[in-house]
Amino acid sequence: MTDAYQRLRKSDLATLRAEIRAGRYRSHTAGLGAGYLQTNIAILPESHALDFMRFCQRNPKPCPLVGVSDTGNPMMTTLGAEIDIRTDVPAYNIYRDGKLAGSAADISDLWTEDMVAFALGCSFTFEDALMQAGVPLWHIENDTTVPMFRSSIDTVPAGPFSGKMVVSLRFVEPGMVETATAISRRFPLAHGAPVHAGDPAAIGIADVTKPDWGDPVPVPEGQVPVFWACGVTPQVAIEAARVPLCITHKPGHMLVTDIPEDAEVPICASANNNDIKNQQGEPA
Amino acid sequence: MTDAYQRLRKSDLATLRAEIRAGRYRSHTAGLGAGYLQTNIAILPESHALDFMRFCQRNPKPCPLVGVSDTGNPMMTTLGAEIDIRTDVPAYNIYRDGKLAGSAADISDLWTEDMVAFALGCSFTFEDALMQAGVPLWHIENDTTVPMFRSSIDTVPAGPFSGKMVVSLRFVEPGMVETATAISRRFPLAHGAPVHAGDPAAIGIADVTKPDWGDPVPVPEGQVPVFWACGVTPQVAIEAARVPLCITHKPGHMLVTDIPEDAEVPICASANNNDIKNQQGEPA
Repeated sequence: MTDAYQRLRKSDLATLRAEIRAGRYRSHTAGLGAGYLQTNIAILPESHALDFMRFCQRNPKPCPLVGVSDTGNPMMTTLGAEIDIRTDVPAYNIYRDGKLAGSAADISDLWTEDMVAFALGCSFTFEDALMQAGVPLWHIENDTTVPMFRSSIDTVPAGPFSGKMVVSLRFVEPGMVETATAISRRFPLAHGAPVHAGDPAAIGIADVTKPDWGDPVPVPEGQVPVFWACGVTPQVAIEAARVPLCITHKPGHMLVTDIPEDAEVPICASANNNDIKNQQGEPA
Repeated sequence: MTDAYQRLRKSDLATLRAEIRAGRYRSHTAGLGAGYLQTNIAILPESHALDFMRFCQRNPKPCPLVGVSDTGNPMMTTLGAEIDIRTDVPAYNIYRDGKLAGSAADISDLWTEDMVAFALGCSFTFEDALMQAGVPLWHIENDTTVPMFRSSIDTVPAGPFSGKMVVSLRFVEPGMVETATAISRRFPLAHGAPVHAGDPAAIGIADVTKPDWGDPVPVPEGQVPVFWACGVTPQVAIEAARVPLCITHKPGHMLVTDIPEDAEVPICASANNNDIKNQQGEPA
């Protein structure tokens, strides 16, 4: 796995997805496809799709909507060339009636004509930018999963989707909090600016050493706990909604897209046979 | 009307909407509620809502999604205190089977239990910022409507929604094009950066003096034609989709929201009884 990981780090996006699609790479995607947007995935029946999309629109920091498939069409055409959502994620979790019921490396046998796939931005994007700006991230340096907590911040409900916001925690030197805020704010498709910095109790977190998801990190003397909206939030909302069947990526095992991290809009040139590159940002 | 306009310019948002709701103000909203997001409106039956929402997600520059109502609920709770979409827009257009069938100052009698209201950002926001940065805008100085053109740029289709992108034109001094681009890019909820600067023929526009919508402007010697994605695009897509009944704002007659123009996310504090202000941007 480490060898495969090192090799894939240097490969192009098409090779990377081909390896994943063939089932030869089933591990986490941190550090892969550097410079390109990675996304959380949620696949739901169309009966729940409009409410879920409203939930994402109303909660753009935990649920930054990056792509939505046509109903029954597994090709995520706006996110890249030939992305097939049934095979192109390294590992999936399967929820039935809101409860985790299993996992899989391929969901071709579960995909049905009424399904809609949603891609939501993830924190890998801004973490890269933070480290490049000299903000060290303990969980990355130590190859653990970022600590995540159920906060007391309510999401804005939509239909059956509701619940508290899940937040991820990174400790930052006091002098760097402003920089970390400014940098992450530049990435609205990757959770944007923090939702809180300082006293964890202010957002309902009693003990920062006991995360609800992910791994604990040491509490460094004098550093500020900084909390960002987290992509686990929609999973909690999906559990609350008791959706009959929902498929997500396995945490850390993201979809790697063809969208550059700094794209103005997350729409891939291949989404259209016309001059859609004009939608990407700068004047042609 | 000019008196009412001058008076409303200085009023607060609640007074402004109360005047509109009471039918005492039915004119355009340019310059009103300065500093707050104004939006285009499209109201469609739920049967078309998921596809329309996908169309907006795939075409965020012409269709920046700012708010979506619950099905059948006319209160746009995420956009402001007590915004009732049936009464709070100064003038509405009514489309039947994709064709303009009339207009109204109040659509309470047309609202039904299956309707979904969409609010899309508009260009007023970045125009304000351009003028403050010293980029003069002829159509505003001369109180005309910005010239708009059907371009050759395809939108990314979603279900029955498709068509060419409509663009608005502003002439800019060559030395200010970069500034205008950088400024408008800061407002992704208001069409963001231009889609084209320079030769109009490159995006299928044969004659800049003959706009498809709005008023012509003089062509100033030596200035660059700069084109932004335009909020008329979804109206064209709605016409193409032949939606049985669709209600929009009358061009220029926008919904004035409680969302500050520089908000990180377009979610109003009143959307939740909890600490949702934390979603707005900076750490608490």
